[in-house]
Amino acid sequence: MSTWVPVPEGSGFGVTNLPYGVFSQRGELPRVGVAIGDHVLDLAELAGAGLLADRRWFAAGSLNAFMSAGRAVWQPTRDRIITLLTDMSYRDEVEPALSPMADVELHMPFAVPDYVDFYSSREHAANLGRILRPGSEPLLPNWTHLPVGYHGRSATVVPSGTPIVRPSGQRRGDHGPVFGPTQKLDIEAEIGCVVGMPSALGQRVPTTAFRDHVFGFVLVNDWSARDVQAWEYQPLGPFLSKSFATSIAPWVVPVEALEAARVRPPEQDPPPLPYLRCDEPWGLDIRLAIELNGHVVSRPPFAGMYWTAPQQLAHTTVNGAVVRTGDLLASGTVSGPTRDQRGSLIELTWNGNEPLELPDGARRVFLEDGDTVRITATAPGTDGTPIGFGGVVGTVYPATE
Amino acid sequence: MSTWVPVPEGSGFGVTNLPYGVFSQRGELPRVGVAIGDHVLDLAELAGAGLLADRRWFAAGSLNAFMSAGRAVWQPTRDRIITLLTDMSYRDEVEPALSPMADVELHMPFAVPDYVDFYSSREHAANLGRILRPGSEPLLPNWTHLPVGYHGRSATVVPSGTPIVRPSGQRRGDHGPVFGPTQKLDIEAEIGCVVGMPSALGQRVPTTAFRDHVFGFVLVNDWSARDVQAWEYQPLGPFLSKSFATSIAPWVVPVEALEAARVRPPEQDPPPLPYLRCDEPWGLDIRLAIELNGHVVSRPPFAGMYWTAPQQLAHTTVNGAVVRTGDLLASGTVSGPTRDQRGSLIELTWNGNEPLELPDGARRVFLEDGDTVRITATAPGTDGTPIGFGGVVGTVYPATE
Repeated sequence: MSTWVPVPEGSGFGVTNLPYGVFSQRGELPRVGVAIGDHVLDLAELAGAGLLADRRWFAAGSLNAFMSAGRAVWQPTRDRIITLLTDMSYRDEVEPALSPMADVELHMPFAVPDYVDFYSSREHAANLGRILRPGSEPLLPNWTHLPVGYHGRSATVVPSGTPIVRPSGQRRGDHGPVFGPTQKLDIEAEIGCVVGMPSALGQRVPTTAFRDHVFGFVLVNDWSARDVQAWEYQPLGPFLSKSFATSIAPWVVPVEALEAARVRPPEQDPPPLPYLRCDEPWGLDIRLAIELNGHVVSRPPFAGMYWTAPQQLAHTTVNGAVVRTGDLLASGTVSGPTRDQRGSLIELTWNGNEPLELPDGARRVFLEDGDTVRITATAPGTDGTPIGFGGVVGTVYPATE
Repeated sequence: MSTWVPVPEGSGFGVTNLPYGVFSQRGELPRVGVAIGDHVLDLAELAGAGLLADRRWFAAGSLNAFMSAGRAVWQPTRDRIITLLTDMSYRDEVEPALSPMADVELHMPFAVPDYVDFYSSREHAANLGRILRPGSEPLLPNWTHLPVGYHGRSATVVPSGTPIVRPSGQRRGDHGPVFGPTQKLDIEAEIGCVVGMPSALGQRVPTTAFRDHVFGFVLVNDWSARDVQAWEYQPLGPFLSKSFATSIAPWVVPVEALEAARVRPPEQDPPPLPYLRCDEPWGLDIRLAIELNGHVVSRPPFAGMYWTAPQQLAHTTVNGAVVRTGDLLASGTVSGPTRDQRGSLIELTWNGNEPLELPDGARRVFLEDGDTVRITATAPGTDGTPIGFGGVVGTVYPATE
């Protein structure tokens, strides 16, 4: 499929992707757009010109209204945008709605009512088990039976680029706990699943209804303070070690754009309980890359995740809990079987015992003030051009007193 | 202080209380009111008549707009309402804004962006430790150093009266996990602290700033599925065992109404780290009562809570995390030192080993379908009449297939 918009080689934003985001320019109000090549297409402007249905979905500061409209709206909207960008006869009308990406500001793409973070990479869970509970079984008994997850703080899901101020908290000391800036600031490279259509209280969302409820996927960096976490997390789970910031990329890749990326996930043994079974292949061949100060330090493969997004959604709602538009279900740290595929520094440096050597001669165990982390991802597209997820970026600033 | 509105003996809704809620009648839109005796006073109507400032705060389906206005608005609003209800010269103008409580429908009083549940009763934490980890220290090492807490699901904070459908989930079986309706449905009697004025990202809310941010307190029943919890909660904390329903009472008692209830909390030994120190007495002499099918089975005393609400708020924000208007910080189960003061059935029946005998001859270990739980609370008021918290009620319905 070819578009009349110039799409540079390797942009990741070809016409088979069309991720949604929220942007503004020249002091105007934020509105909904899609990325195409090095440009953003203004959907509010197109709707205002009568080229796209229902301006209310797009002249909004978040994707939530559009996402809540459901698949019966998402699909024709996407088809229509593809037509507008590929049919030369629309070029004159549509071109004015394109802005160079360099000229716009990208915002938080959607409001997050509830944020759940899972723990669905077997390699990650086993690595953490080996590091934190040496000498015992790396995986706890429940891990192969359910997608372990917990609720995070929705208030601190922030857009890419938000400064990451080193958090302070309690950590274990030699003579009782001490308070101060975390000394083990870490990242977690993840893929988040974004709910579009809400469910009703008491209604389960079976794995077969995944596409009716989920709008798309977004890159996530779940910043973590490992020393705070180690001290606080028993028995009710992580709290302040995670709640200072969770960054997401500005672009939500629609489920439809990932058709060619779908793969069969790893075989599940023991077989999951019936409510978690999923016959359709919902593994996703998304390849992440973690850059620390411009150097790629890891390439985590999402295709190897043990628990898939439809299973996570079925699990979240099996007790009747409701999901709402904008709910973020993050995968948990994506780690592959080899060292250069680990999705967090605690794994990459084995809790600080094996420093990373960067090409510029620097060494890192955990993050230092001034460090910048950028996570990117690509997946195969239906016409051979890659599907890009944009990037989720954050720079570490010193703790405030 | 005496009001011209008749207030029945023991109503708990005298003129020194004036809790805020959201109500509707005769198909009209929900709006903000305060409880006075057996009546609800319509604040939107008063504002419309020019008797109270800014109708936008009150002609709303939640308390959030009013709560976000801050203490500089809360205090004069409360003073003004007291004047309107005590000064006979306003009676003719104000009386039309009163509706019998029996004629109105009470709604969810505020929208909850983030819900945190603490674990701040020493007796509760120790009881759970003894039940779940017999033979080891009842309290984990971090418990006396920080108010342990975790994020709950804000989507399923529901108003009193919402049917509680028995949730299904995984629990431990003899040969691996089994799936089905929980067999250990429980309650947790708690008091929640409701944030009014938000904080900014990166801004700590010290214990001394508590009154600037917190609007009031509300009764909470954090329904729990103990068998699901025991299987799922390692290592990231409770998830589905709690996320099916958390009920709150329809009335938010303003901080100002609790002046006479403030007591010195239990001495903290070891002394907490500086950011958790609180010189002002923020223990609250709130006396809870748990009724199971009309029989009082426990009277948990809130005054004995080890960690106080200002400490919980200071802890939540010490890493720079933001709080928003409507955030609910629940105390955790309120349990006192004696058996008849325990705030959950897992404690009252010692994990089902010591059934409760009800006066009608029934026995209970955990909740059965059809059971109704009602939690109420009172605190001393400034003029000797008690401050009532209304009630939080829920009836258990059978699991859906």
